[in-house]
Parts: sequence; structure tokens; C-alpha cells
Amino acid sequence: MENLLVGTSTGDDAAVLRLDGGQALVQTVDFFTPIVDDPELFGEIAAANSVSDIYAMGARPILGLAIAAFPTDRLPLSVLEAILRGGARKAAEAGFPVAGGHTIIDDVPKYGLAVTGIADADRIVRNSTAQPGDKLYLTKPIGNGILVCARRALSNGGWKQIVKREAGPSLDQAIDIMTTLNRSAAEAMVEVGVHAATDITGYGLVGHLLEMCDGSGVGARIRVSDVPILDDVRLYLEKGYVPAGTMRNVGTFQNRVESSVSSDDFTLVCDAQTSGGLLIAVSSENATALERALGARNVTFAQIGAMTEKGRKLEIVA
Amino acid sequence: MENLLVGTSTGDDAAVLRLDGGQALVQTVDFFTPIVDDPELFGEIAAANSVSDIYAMGARPILGLAIAAFPTDRLPLSVLEAILRGGARKAAEAGFPVAGGHTIIDDVPKYGLAVTGIADADRIVRNSTAQPGDKLYLTKPIGNGILVCARRALSNGGWKQIVKREAGPSLDQAIDIMTTLNRSAAEAMVEVGVHAATDITGYGLVGHLLEMCDGSGVGARIRVSDVPILDDVRLYLEKGYVPAGTMRNVGTFQNRVESSVSSDDFTLVCDAQTSGGLLIAVSSENATALERALGARNVTFAQIGAMTEKGRKLEIVA
Repeated sequence: MENLLVGTSTGDDAAVLRLDGGQALVQTVDFFTPIVDDPELFGEIAAANSVSDIYAMGARPILGLAIAAFPTDRLPLSVLEAILRGGARKAAEAGFPVAGGHTIIDDVPKYGLAVTGIADADRIVRNSTAQPGDKLYLTKPIGNGILVCARRALSNGGWKQIVKREAGPSLDQAIDIMTTLNRSAAEAMVEVGVHAATDITGYGLVGHLLEMCDGSGVGARIRVSDVPILDDVRLYLEKGYVPAGTMRNVGTFQNRVESSVSSDDFTLVCDAQTSGGLLIAVSSENATALERALGARNVTFAQIGAMTEKGRKLEIVA
Repeated sequence: MENLLVGTSTGDDAAVLRLDGGQALVQTVDFFTPIVDDPELFGEIAAANSVSDIYAMGARPILGLAIAAFPTDRLPLSVLEAILRGGARKAAEAGFPVAGGHTIIDDVPKYGLAVTGIADADRIVRNSTAQPGDKLYLTKPIGNGILVCARRALSNGGWKQIVKREAGPSLDQAIDIMTTLNRSAAEAMVEVGVHAATDITGYGLVGHLLEMCDGSGVGARIRVSDVPILDDVRLYLEKGYVPAGTMRNVGTFQNRVESSVSSDDFTLVCDAQTSGGLLIAVSSENATALERALGARNVTFAQIGAMTEKGRKLEIVA
């Protein structure tokens, strides 16, 4: 009989069920509203974001089903087709088919995937098994929430025509990051063997690291100056472009950490990400091997801190 | 390497992937807006409807993830909790856990499940392998689309106050049917061995039977007088209560069948169902065994017609 290895109690990235014969089934579902204008790019980002939970568990995606909502009476069907095409292309890059799904008529478009993955049951990488002293690695720069927010606010046509505002930040770098699969990063960590991992999405770096701390029963310490940040994020943060999800994170997490950084810096590390990188906790002994394995696969990474002893809070320093 | 046994080409109920070792993974996803006022009952219906695709393939559900959309600013969170509670209870009845999921903020509530099932790869029941001469069985009465539509229109508070209209049909029988799992029906058909099966949902009896005909390359013939119908459906159909999905089905399918029945009868067999029954094609030799296996599990059923030769259309007679 199957047996639930990872459920909802540790806020992990996906559900994991042990199958007969030593394999584990990893299942996740995710969908959201468009964050870029190009529907095909939106499809790619949503698919990369959905499959990221599978990679964060150290698993391999084998099957996807599309989840879509679309206003058939107000947008041409070609837009939906472009979203689905982008998602299917990204899934193909990840090596799995999108074999159907479910679409409903709805006012606001939404898209994402339910993705099934598979792994050896004893090689599943949880978010709740970090150890004190583990080094913390992050594989993508953060800040795409702030950039998307600024772009959306500033490129609004009506405003632009009236006051000739700037067009907002370029999203090229952020889109490049958001469409990049966490596949190579996951392969590197599974090859080396790490203690814990998660991916950075809606709760931001701080929220997902807090889940890792809580689940593992240990503390952590990160240095903001070591955290890689997308270009121009600080500029738009200073101008006040902060998405609602990031604001919620700041409010939810500020009393749960020991922070000695500026308000802007704290907001930055709380920024809600779409399709963010992996956050990996690895033993000191294996850290060099992980760096080598990531580098060999051309995965960008930064060591941003370490896990600390039981009873310590998450400390955030400049 | 995994190998896709059932994809999107035959309009089947779920995607099926062959795993190493003879097992098959069956995956489906479904969600929709509330069709009854009671949030907990809505959760039960949505869960029964979602897992139905797994049963229709002859598989056993092992894992579910919730998909939810909810207007957190306009409805109390207790409503969402009741929906999730109803869904989890129905999943527990079906023997699988709901281990997390994804919820977004949205104007209109939506709920459903991504469900993973498992089966012996060589016992998967497709919708595309019916044979000429097979007997056709249906395990639930139809008409819940029309009843829900009538109830919604007639129980509208504003109208009732002004013109003291009737409250609309009772939904008790329909809710009983919609919350009934297709589990026992599926176990009966797998035990006996049948040629093909599908479940009746949004495309109605006619639409899902057409998929079976097209996928199998054969025709079919059904007799409307043999099709079980919920109480009072004909009454509200005559009064003109026909849901949009049913209207779309009538328009889409009317040129693809040979029908000698009244317009109302054709609308009835096109009625879009929520959590409808299984439609099973079984050889004449095995038909009695299927009836016995269904009866032994207290599953209601009716023989509604038979599959016919290649080149024949779907014929609908009174």
C-alpha cells in the first residue's frame, strides 16, 4: 500500500507518496494570472514555475496536465493557444508531455500545470531536514516580483499618454531567469547529496527559508549583501514599487526573524518570486562538491548564509 | 523510461503513463464554480467529480491535491474551509489523502482536485476500445444539469420576494447522485473485464458516447426510454430550464448523430452532468456478469443501448 512520505505539515513543495518497489511519486499543482504581456512567454514561465516544485524535491517530472481559465468572450482563442504552446514547449524542454488538462471560462486568464514526478524514495530532498552548520546556496537572483510590479504600473498606457512617464524596467533579465528550469540545479544537488532544499516562490526567500527552519527545527543566518539581485531592483524598490504579495510577506514574517537590515533590504529578501531558484542546504563537507556540480552545469549560484543551531531564529544581516 | 499510454488524442478521461514494473500512473485534474449553496456539499461533489476520471479508467486513486480559488476579501474564510473539508472527507471515503494543493485569490470561488491513480497497465479501461455488439450500461441517472439550472434560476432571492415564485426543484436526489463515488461501479467493471468505459460529465451522455464511438471507430444506438432520469427533470426541461453547457452540447452534437427523438429528448441526453455515472461497454458474454457484479455492490444501473458496426453513426431512438 502507498504511504504518504511528505504531506502538508512541513509546507514542503510537493506531496510525496511511496510506491511499491522503492519509487516515490511526487505531485504538485500551481497556476496564476499573467505576469508578462506575451502569452507564450507567460506559458513558459508558468510551466517552469510549476515544475520547479518537482525539481526542489530532487525528482524528475514525467507528466503534466494543464490548468487554464480563459475569457473566451473577450480575448481571441489564439491567446489561449499561445499560452498552452509556451507551456508545452517548456515542458518538452523539461522532458515531459502535457497530456490534456482542464480549462474553464473565467474573467481573468490563469494558467499552470499539475505535474507528476518520480524519484527513488530514499533520495527525495525535503525542506525539513536541514542541519545546523549547513551552508545555504541560492541558484537564481531575486527581485522579479518588484520588477514585474514596477513594469505593470509604469507601462500602463493611460498614464503614459497623460504624463509621459517612463516605460518601467526592462523585464528581459527577469524573464530569462523565470523561464530557466531548475532542472540542472536539481540534478547537481541530487548527484552530490544535500540535506534539504526548496524553491523560492510566493513567500520569498525569507518565507521559504523560514519553512525550512521550522520544518528542520533549526535556525539560519543570511547576509543580504551575499544574495544575488536582479538589475535595477533596488532602484524600483526605492521608488516604492512593491507587489501586494511581497507586502504581505513583510507583514507576516517581520516578527519571526531577527533582522538588523534596513526596511528596503528586508522587503527585498521578502520579495514574492515567480519561478525563483532553488535554496539548498548542504553539509560543509559537501559544499565544494555542490559548487563544482552546479558550475559544471552552468548553474549560477551564491552562498548566502548557513543554518544555525536549534532554538536560534532566522537572522538577517547586512 | 515511462511511456504515455493515453494522451489527448482520444478525449479520454485521464492521462495514463506506463511506469517501470507493469504499473500505470493515471492523472486527472478538474475544478469548477459552486453548483449548490452548501459549501461543504460543493466540496464533496467537486471531489467525487474529480476522482471519477480515475475510476472511469479502472484505476485506484492514491493522492489528491486541491485546486482552489477564493475571494478572501468578500467571503469569510470559513466558507473556503468548509469546501476543503467536504472535499477531504469525500477523498477519505475514496481512500486517498488530499496532501496540499494551490489556492489563489479570485472573484468567484472555484474548487476541484488533481488526482493521481494507479492501476495494472494491462487492466486500464479506455474509452476508445469498444467493440460492435457491446452492451452499453449507465450507472447513474442523468439530468442534474437541468435541475441545478432550474434551482438556481427559481430560488433567486430577489425574484422570489417580488413575485412569490416557487423555490425550484429539490436538489436532494441530484446531490445524492453527485456525491456518490463511481468507485463501486469501477471495481465491478474491473473485476468482470469490460471493453471500454468513460464517465458522464460536461459533454453529457451524447458527447461522451460520441467520444467512445470516435475513439473506437464504431457506432452506437441508445434508446431514450431506457435512460434513467432524475425526478422532475422533464418538468423543468419543458419549462425551458436548460444550462448553457447543455445548449452548447445540443448545438455541437446535433449534426453528428442520427436522432429520431423530440427536441426535448435530445436536449435531455445532451444535458451537461456534474459527477455523472460510468458509461460501460461490455461484451454480450460478460453483460450478465457485469450486472451481477454491479448489483452485488448496490450500484444502480441500466442497459441503455449497444455499440454498432463501424461506419454507423450514433443513433438515438425514443
